[in-house]
Amino acid sequence: MRNNAISPATQLCAVIGNPVGHSLSPALHNAAFDALNLDFVYVAFRVEDLKSALAGMRALHNFRGMSVTIPHKIEAMAWVDEIPEVDRAIGSINTIINENGRLIGLGTDGPGALKALLDGGAEIDGKNILMLGAGGAARAIAFTLAMQARPAKITIMDINEAMLQGLANDLTKGTSTPIEPAVLNESSLAKAMAEADVIINCTPIGMHPKEDVSLVPVELFRPGQVVFDIVYNPLETKLLADARSRGLRVISGVEMFINQAVLQFERFTGQEAPVEVMRRVVLERLGA
Amino acid sequence: MRNNAISPATQLCAVIGNPVGHSLSPALHNAAFDALNLDFVYVAFRVEDLKSALAGMRALHNFRGMSVTIPHKIEAMAWVDEIPEVDRAIGSINTIINENGRLIGLGTDGPGALKALLDGGAEIDGKNILMLGAGGAARAIAFTLAMQARPAKITIMDINEAMLQGLANDLTKGTSTPIEPAVLNESSLAKAMAEADVIINCTPIGMHPKEDVSLVPVELFRPGQVVFDIVYNPLETKLLADARSRGLRVISGVEMFINQAVLQFERFTGQEAPVEVMRRVVLERLGA
Repeated sequence: MRNNAISPATQLCAVIGNPVGHSLSPALHNAAFDALNLDFVYVAFRVEDLKSALAGMRALHNFRGMSVTIPHKIEAMAWVDEIPEVDRAIGSINTIINENGRLIGLGTDGPGALKALLDGGAEIDGKNILMLGAGGAARAIAFTLAMQARPAKITIMDINEAMLQGLANDLTKGTSTPIEPAVLNESSLAKAMAEADVIINCTPIGMHPKEDVSLVPVELFRPGQVVFDIVYNPLETKLLADARSRGLRVISGVEMFINQAVLQFERFTGQEAPVEVMRRVVLERLGA
Repeated sequence: MRNNAISPATQLCAVIGNPVGHSLSPALHNAAFDALNLDFVYVAFRVEDLKSALAGMRALHNFRGMSVTIPHKIEAMAWVDEIPEVDRAIGSINTIINENGRLIGLGTDGPGALKALLDGGAEIDGKNILMLGAGGAARAIAFTLAMQARPAKITIMDINEAMLQGLANDLTKGTSTPIEPAVLNESSLAKAMAEADVIINCTPIGMHPKEDVSLVPVELFRPGQVVFDIVYNPLETKLLADARSRGLRVISGVEMFINQAVLQFERFTGQEAPVEVMRRVVLERLGA
């Protein structure tokens, strides 16, 4: 009897991507709609023709919101009507809101990471941030921190020098935060770790099934550092386990995953999200 | 907890129209999905830009089926990929099936009416059919009977001579059934009633709130006739009440309404529809 309350007024939300067969988003958002007794339902659509899918969203009143996932997060920017400055700088979106036929594109990955950091007890204001990786997730997090959280400096490390320099240049042009790019190697990492207050892993290193690796040798950790890993499978990566063994505060990527969904939910519905319900669904589905 | 079983594999169906705020279709189809425990959900979308809405359906894999209602039943033909011959002749569709990005448009109003007639005990094969009205519903029913049920003759009556002649010409060109158009007046109606075996009202005469009128004077009914009214609000129109008072077999428009939805459901899902569940929902919603 799951559908018995659906009416002509029910609003649809959906995740679009390709593939979407393993998405947690329907379970997550539907549990939250149910918890607040909201007249919404959330499904998953595999999409190849993104332009037509978004034209359809615009034409289908009651199609209220979308979560946008791989491979559409960059191209989607071309087919929406409005994008906030920070998301234009980041260069990708993961959320689309249909405001009466006007599509607003925005990102919640960066704000989701910032909220995970702050909720997890990390201070950003006036602190040295070390980001490992210069890919899409790093872009979203670095721009959000630089534009919204006043770090003293963001050091960015990657082995791909072109990508590293590109992100550093964009951040320097687009924000007033001091940015220090450094090609990642043993000595540059040791130097960066010596002055970092908050370390953020934005690479896939440590993700299932290669769980027994970490970018940071355990002896480089120093007291007082906070370590955040965007990887959430496993919930505690080797990076986090090592940091915790040194007594450091650690924040799992699952908190960023939950928060990006929380922020989407709040844009879809205009209601405060039932965070604990959403966390429980995610942890259940991840087998925690 | 209505949404708790929705997964990335859940298929979406929807009614599109303008307005759709009073549609019974979400309640009807969702009850049927639930009864068979099918992984489908059905919502309502108000649509103005039909072309974009259908382009979107094509691009959103898992968007399996649509019910199309006023004002889109004619224009929708222009934006689908395939339409059966009978529905091209009728000139409107009420159903779209998404076969992996290929949109099949078809009508279930005519087949729904035919099924209502046969289930209600009307014989069509070799019989004289009298249709009152030459509008869209009459087109769908007349073409379906002429192409699929071998009536001896279909007499069509309307006060609009141009519409009457247009339908009669299309039927004569498109089918081998003898068609007899006649402008509706007292004497032509008396003559047609004298030879009709099955009388079908395809006009809105008798619909709520003008319930106390009927096109057919009660003294024109003859024993053995079957009378079908496409109007379903009220469930028993004055036409049907009069016919029943003369001992005739009568069939309510609600049976056509249920059957058109049953046939849609079977195209959406490939499963035999739970007809009694659907009838119960419709009768409940109509306050019966």
